[in-house]
Amino acid sequence: METTGKTVNELPSWNNGEAKTRILNFVKNATDSASKSYIPPAERIAVFDNDGTLWNEAPMLFQLNFTFDRIKNLAPQHPEWKTQQPFKAILENDRETMKKFSHKELGLLLAASHTGISPEEFKAAATQWFDTAQHPVYKRLYTKCVYQPQLELLNYLRENGFKNYIVSGGGVDFMRAFAEKTYGIPPEQIIGTSSKTKLETKAGKAVLEKTPELQSFDDRAEKVSNINLHIGRRPVLACGNSDGDLNMLQYTAGSATPNLVILIHHDDSEREMAYEKHPVMGELKEGLTEAKARNWILVSMKNDWKKVFPE
Amino acid sequence: METTGKTVNELPSWNNGEAKTRILNFVKNATDSASKSYIPPAERIAVFDNDGTLWNEAPMLFQLNFTFDRIKNLAPQHPEWKTQQPFKAILENDRETMKKFSHKELGLLLAASHTGISPEEFKAAATQWFDTAQHPVYKRLYTKCVYQPQLELLNYLRENGFKNYIVSGGGVDFMRAFAEKTYGIPPEQIIGTSSKTKLETKAGKAVLEKTPELQSFDDRAEKVSNINLHIGRRPVLACGNSDGDLNMLQYTAGSATPNLVILIHHDDSEREMAYEKHPVMGELKEGLTEAKARNWILVSMKNDWKKVFPE
Ligand SMILES: [Ca+2]
Ligand SMILES: [Ca+2]
Repeated sequence: METTGKTVNELPSWNNGEAKTRILNFVKNATDSASKSYIPPAERIAVFDNDGTLWNEAPMLFQLNFTFDRIKNLAPQHPEWKTQQPFKAILENDRETMKKFSHKELGLLLAASHTGISPEEFKAAATQWFDTAQHPVYKRLYTKCVYQPQLELLNYLRENGFKNYIVSGGGVDFMRAFAEKTYGIPPEQIIGTSSKTKLETKAGKAVLEKTPELQSFDDRAEKVSNINLHIGRRPVLACGNSDGDLNMLQYTAGSATPNLVILIHHDDSEREMAYEKHPVMGELKEGLTEAKARNWILVSMKNDWKKVFPE
Repeated sequence: METTGKTVNELPSWNNGEAKTRILNFVKNATDSASKSYIPPAERIAVFDNDGTLWNEAPMLFQLNFTFDRIKNLAPQHPEWKTQQPFKAILENDRETMKKFSHKELGLLLAASHTGISPEEFKAAATQWFDTAQHPVYKRLYTKCVYQPQLELLNYLRENGFKNYIVSGGGVDFMRAFAEKTYGIPPEQIIGTSSKTKLETKAGKAVLEKTPELQSFDDRAEKVSNINLHIGRRPVLACGNSDGDLNMLQYTAGSATPNLVILIHHDDSEREMAYEKHPVMGELKEGLTEAKARNWILVSMKNDWKKVFPE
């Protein structure tokens, strides 16, 4: 009988209750070769959304904060931005204009801040930002705005032979800059929104350059297509927080093997945010209905988590 | 000091010589934390081309044999194929017409044989073919037309903490049907040519369908872009056999960390095939020049390998 799980102090930041019990039972059965819900190690694929699932996304997606900060950093090399929208608004901290940015304007900002450089150069810029920038509300590094209970879940799964993947609408290179250190998830287990790269030769060396051309917008059904493209197996565990994750959750639930589907519900207006009161955040409507109909685990951040953020 | 390598009987089907010695030295240093050529485990990424690098590709790419066989299998459901090219030529085994298939005609055959079904259904069809079909020249299963010395190299690398990836122009779903069993390479470490998938609901379950729309033709510079997209790290070892691999080899050689680049040279007309004499196979011209100029390992199948195929 193969059992690799630890037996004490599992998921310490999770309150006792249905969510914790079902997660622990699922993993204990998955790793117990005598159980009819045993899952061979190679098939223990777990997929997690990132924004709002593993870390905070309020009041604004962290990658947008990064984008605006990077535009400010690059401004000295672009004197024309002083008079050019959408750049001007950022340099002047003109919040009214920023709130009304169109998709096209956001695209221009993303292109200016994320492309024209190699993935390695971008990673260095993002890493520097993660090492220094502070979240405007929580006044701490963005990498400290991750959810402590989820860090424990990732670790618990890994210790039990699961391979954790991120499958997120966030930029893949942006996530790769912090996820290995923060989540213990290596770059090859991160799937995200991506732009195309082109190969060039510089000083006799082959280097890639990030281009503005979209490769994949990793949301909704595209999450499932990318899981198939990158992983080639149906996951046995999926965790998300919005209707953008619904296809991925349904796909996981459709597996012939035992599976576990988890929805994180932002209902904690004191320690974090209750999304029903905040129309900008990732919408969770269909997902709530389906979670109840299909008996998925609905995690109440307010009731199921002892704490939200790490100390 | 971390040393995980075995010390006896490494690469038994490789003759002693420069190629074997350099591979063994690279791996011994990579795994010796006291060496200045040490490579941390997380960075030990090795990428291999497949056709002509890990298995035979002569006289025709195996995937084409599969394609033609599958067209024959599907023919009863498509009576119109009896009079319709390019299908007619395959059903009549009309080799003269088959030799002249255009890219468009090959595209029609690939679409008819590879799409309109789920990745799982495709995998089942390919697995059945791998379990039964015989190579026309070697009269053995296609999965027994792999190169024994390369199986040993993959295993040796894996035992020393390397993560082996396939990065091939072959279809990703086709390779996933045999590579785990044959090479010990799981689906999530296979990068190949892919078509787009679309998500559908069948009997209340989320299922993917393979469509004929090309997602990525994984050759030349696209191999490098896909390495970045899927792995997100520059490999430290790359192995190929044709100019289609050259970009991937150059990219690996451009790493700041120690790296090893290996080219397999088909120079064994007795036991396999000498490609200079065969214009259809993967061309190796620029690669040969560059291998010499950059001191890459050029593996002579004739001289460096004790045997070509497994018993
Ligand atoms: Ca989310
Ligand atoms: Ca090849």
